[in-house]
Amino acid sequence: MGESLRGLKRTTMCGDLRESHIGNVETVMGWVQKKRNLGGLVFIDLRDREGILQVVFGDAINSEAFKKADLVKSEYCIAVTGKIVKRESPNESMPTGMVELQGENIRILSESETPPIYIKEDLDAAENIRLKYRYLDLRRPDMQRIFKIRHKAAKVIRDFLDEKGFLEMETPMLTKSTPEGARDYLVPSRNFQGKFYALPQSPQLFKQLLMVSGYDKYFQIVKCFRDEDLRANRQPEFTQVDMELSFVEEDDVIAVNEELIKKVFKEIAGVDVKLPIERMPWKIAMEKYGSDKPDLRFGMEINDITKAVEGCDFKVFKSAIEAGGSVRAIKVPNCADMGRKQIDKLGEFVKTYKAKGLAWIAYKENEIKSPIAKFLKEEELAAVLKSVDAKVGDLILIVADKNSVVLQALGALRLHMCKELDLLKDNKEFRFVWVTEFPLLSYNEEEGRFQAEHHPFTMPMDEDIQYLESDPGRVRAKAYDIVLNGEELGGGSVRIHDTALQERMFKVLGFTKESAWERFGFLLEAFKFGPPPHAGLAYGFDRMIMFLAGTENIKDVITFPKNQNAYCPLTEAPNVVDEKQLCELGIGITKEEEKEEQ
Amino acid sequence: MGESLRGLKRTTMCGDLRESHIGNVETVMGWVQKKRNLGGLVFIDLRDREGILQVVFGDAINSEAFKKADLVKSEYCIAVTGKIVKRESPNESMPTGMVELQGENIRILSESETPPIYIKEDLDAAENIRLKYRYLDLRRPDMQRIFKIRHKAAKVIRDFLDEKGFLEMETPMLTKSTPEGARDYLVPSRNFQGKFYALPQSPQLFKQLLMVSGYDKYFQIVKCFRDEDLRANRQPEFTQVDMELSFVEEDDVIAVNEELIKKVFKEIAGVDVKLPIERMPWKIAMEKYGSDKPDLRFGMEINDITKAVEGCDFKVFKSAIEAGGSVRAIKVPNCADMGRKQIDKLGEFVKTYKAKGLAWIAYKENEIKSPIAKFLKEEELAAVLKSVDAKVGDLILIVADKNSVVLQALGALRLHMCKELDLLKDNKEFRFVWVTEFPLLSYNEEEGRFQAEHHPFTMPMDEDIQYLESDPGRVRAKAYDIVLNGEELGGGSVRIHDTALQERMFKVLGFTKESAWERFGFLLEAFKFGPPPHAGLAYGFDRMIMFLAGTENIKDVITFPKNQNAYCPLTEAPNVVDEKQLCELGIGITKEEEKEEQ
Repeated sequence: MGESLRGLKRTTMCGDLRESHIGNVETVMGWVQKKRNLGGLVFIDLRDREGILQVVFGDAINSEAFKKADLVKSEYCIAVTGKIVKRESPNESMPTGMVELQGENIRILSESETPPIYIKEDLDAAENIRLKYRYLDLRRPDMQRIFKIRHKAAKVIRDFLDEKGFLEMETPMLTKSTPEGARDYLVPSRNFQGKFYALPQSPQLFKQLLMVSGYDKYFQIVKCFRDEDLRANRQPEFTQVDMELSFVEEDDVIAVNEELIKKVFKEIAGVDVKLPIERMPWKIAMEKYGSDKPDLRFGMEINDITKAVEGCDFKVFKSAIEAGGSVRAIKVPNCADMGRKQIDKLGEFVKTYKAKGLAWIAYKENEIKSPIAKFLKEEELAAVLKSVDAKVGDLILIVADKNSVVLQALGALRLHMCKELDLLKDNKEFRFVWVTEFPLLSYNEEEGRFQAEHHPFTMPMDEDIQYLESDPGRVRAKAYDIVLNGEELGGGSVRIHDTALQERMFKVLGFTKESAWERFGFLLEAFKFGPPPHAGLAYGFDRMIMFLAGTENIKDVITFPKNQNAYCPLTEAPNVVDEKQLCELGIGITKEEEKEEQ
Repeated sequence: MGESLRGLKRTTMCGDLRESHIGNVETVMGWVQKKRNLGGLVFIDLRDREGILQVVFGDAINSEAFKKADLVKSEYCIAVTGKIVKRESPNESMPTGMVELQGENIRILSESETPPIYIKEDLDAAENIRLKYRYLDLRRPDMQRIFKIRHKAAKVIRDFLDEKGFLEMETPMLTKSTPEGARDYLVPSRNFQGKFYALPQSPQLFKQLLMVSGYDKYFQIVKCFRDEDLRANRQPEFTQVDMELSFVEEDDVIAVNEELIKKVFKEIAGVDVKLPIERMPWKIAMEKYGSDKPDLRFGMEINDITKAVEGCDFKVFKSAIEAGGSVRAIKVPNCADMGRKQIDKLGEFVKTYKAKGLAWIAYKENEIKSPIAKFLKEEELAAVLKSVDAKVGDLILIVADKNSVVLQALGALRLHMCKELDLLKDNKEFRFVWVTEFPLLSYNEEEGRFQAEHHPFTMPMDEDIQYLESDPGRVRAKAYDIVLNGEELGGGSVRIHDTALQERMFKVLGFTKESAWERFGFLLEAFKFGPPPHAGLAYGFDRMIMFLAGTENIKDVITFPKNQNAYCPLTEAPNVVDEKQLCELGIGITKEEEKEEQ
């Protein structure tokens, strides 16, 4: 058992000591990063949350402490008291590198076995080991930096929203399952056997009710849950910065959020965000970037070359155009010399996005090389080159198909080429864009019905409401996403606040009146009592922290994340429970399937 | 469908208008509290989050607006533009009572049916109606006041802890079931059918791991869950202000929390809390107040009169003392004339706390009246009166039994008398006390084993560790509760940070080594790697808000609370789910029981 702390007070943090402290007697506490015994002296690098301090023990300083210090090993937890002195050989790379502490007294608060992972920056350990020993992984200074950023970002956001008159209000975690969208996590009820609560996928309905209740401006930083098969950078529980405002229109929500974004990115990451942030209608984003979250940090926009080739003899182009599709191209600079094999690989790549193939034109110094050149008249070829504003050295990549396939394939290819060519290597830009005028509905081919693009409470644009029943696909929504460097940072919309319109919307979505009322009756009922116009937005807080901290792994920004199977290697959750617990809930296990790898 | 907001901007909140605004043209938006048509004029009391403003419409101001204003009814949501003028007959009881707005333009944003509950202060409606129409209940100004307090209290706490170097860190909601203490809410896993997550009863284990990880000072305002049969003022999900500190002892935790308490109660409720807050060992609290959360706002402490009566002939006293029990009394001032019937009722009251009966002595002006007087010698009676320092007019109430029964019965009787006599009617005191030196363990008669009084991670007091195995009942813990006006506001402890001691503790609690490791293995494992000494505390945030807002009903401080059956009358959660959802989870319903009343 370690020594007691009794009566000993820490006077300062290791990382805070500077030359101004020279002469002070200080007491520090922390973990042994490294110990070296150089014969007459023992040096310990002592680490706490604020940094590392060199502590030196010697026979001449204090003989007893010197002997005890020699017993410690890496990651022992110790307390040391002694005088701060100037270091003989300063270490400029450490903030505390000008000073050291002369250990006059040491207490070993607890010992440590050899840790299974190194406590150091940029650790390159297997993920399952990092997660199993998460408490050691979290000791690493780069992880500690991230969680300081996370704390500070939440603080900046809360301070800002408080100042703007938002009230932080908690909404229920044990609520009702409304299976539209992702899968709910269910919680069996003991009081009502056979019935279940659901964990919220978002506080959407409750924040709308709070607007009906007149709270005017609400926000919450809150856990949400989705029981989905985990893609990279998804977690079953995640955190949203959620807000809702009454008596506002789209521009008001955007304005306050631009201010918020500017403040957060400046205060946490030192980034200047220029306002107003560019806005781009969804249709333009799709046509130029093949994505509703366009990365604007580089070019290679998609060009429509249908006009240039509509008379050509190339069957693939011809049939695509005849079927109502299009022919589009991106231009990759300085790649005219790309080898055939590499280009073939790009062809394989676009096929994973359902394109049937990839045509290409290499615009070389003295020739134009292209397997489709023979199908094009000279003026058609020239028109294509002109459409994409091609220059010598450019490689033009072309897909012909129905529009959705062409755009998706070229959008993905554009990002792929950016990665392949490492175009963003030294790019430190934070490129924001609001994507607006989303389609309200999208057609679900599998289910043969329209479904809400955002959620069923989104307000259609005034001028499009008339088409809600006659041509649902053309109705645009008062919805807006904030996109940063090609990632969705947040999104929101103006909400429907009218029972009649909300019922029309449910009808278009294929709900019967009964089923709509069964699921969302309390919202429809609330709308009978003077609901205010309202709108809101929610950020993925985990993703925001990834940007602010400069990491691409969501597990780096969550204290105790789950792995890809929604399993926690540390606590071994989920786990078996006592039969008695299930019995009280009135449920039983009908299938038991052990995945081989957790 | 209501009119659109398009192009209209709110310029101010209703409740913010004062004489300094006279002459301005303002646009306000809110709900119709009341409409009166006085022939030539229509008066509307318009309500928003900040207050109520009188708006007047007239033919002479704007004839069109006047006609439209006459159409509105209570709880219509409207927007009005017009000039602020001085009111002819000011209403001093309203903050905006010196001015009114002359309505030149009105938009009816949405209509309202007649609400099923009144939107007014101090509503006296049935709870199930209030909960079913919670969005209307939440419109009431007294509810809005509470949620502003809740927001502000969270802000003050966060600001304070941030300044003290605490990091707010989120811990998992989907975690492992460790059934010690209350019942867990379970969440079936889809990926691992037959296994379950549990919702956390507190972040206890994770915050201890964060200390092992070197985060030094952690806090979180966080939802916790307990699937218990709900007593009054309990909710299945509740909010904790949770904190943990490294390298500290009991006094350090108490010091920072006294500062926090002082700040919160001053800033939110204007209450001056004098520091340091009184401390009282658990044993004293039990002996003087019969409670581990003593209400110190009034006297009537319990007195031990065993010595005074140990030689008497009264059988009840005699046998209690002989069996190792005691005879104790409280003194109720000015109640010597209490009637026999009333005293009999008090006898019935103490019986519900397992006391066999209640003896009494009425110290009247000219006589001493008592059914037990005949059993006491004169000097014994005098000794009793002296023991309790009795004065003319006092009523002395006596219980004899084993100590635990005597103390519990008299503790409850003390509170009961306080309520009966309405002693705290005009008492505005906020009387804090730290209760310390709790027993580490208590004996569970049913299960025939010791159980943790707080939780199994609590550190024993240094001087008592030696008795852990030989006399577990006498071991005191480094645990402390903060008690306010007889309610537990929060509690915490210094934690064990040593695997060996933690294992001894589990053994005393009757865990085998295997079962302890199965449940808490990751914590025990973590303790192998240099855990720091650490301690913490958690407040019941809901209860704190109840004090700050002056309400005695926990449902008043939670936006969408559950009823006594953990049921939400608004959303009708819990509810049935699709068979498909259960099938995916690999569970089935084995018992289906519909409670008659929800």
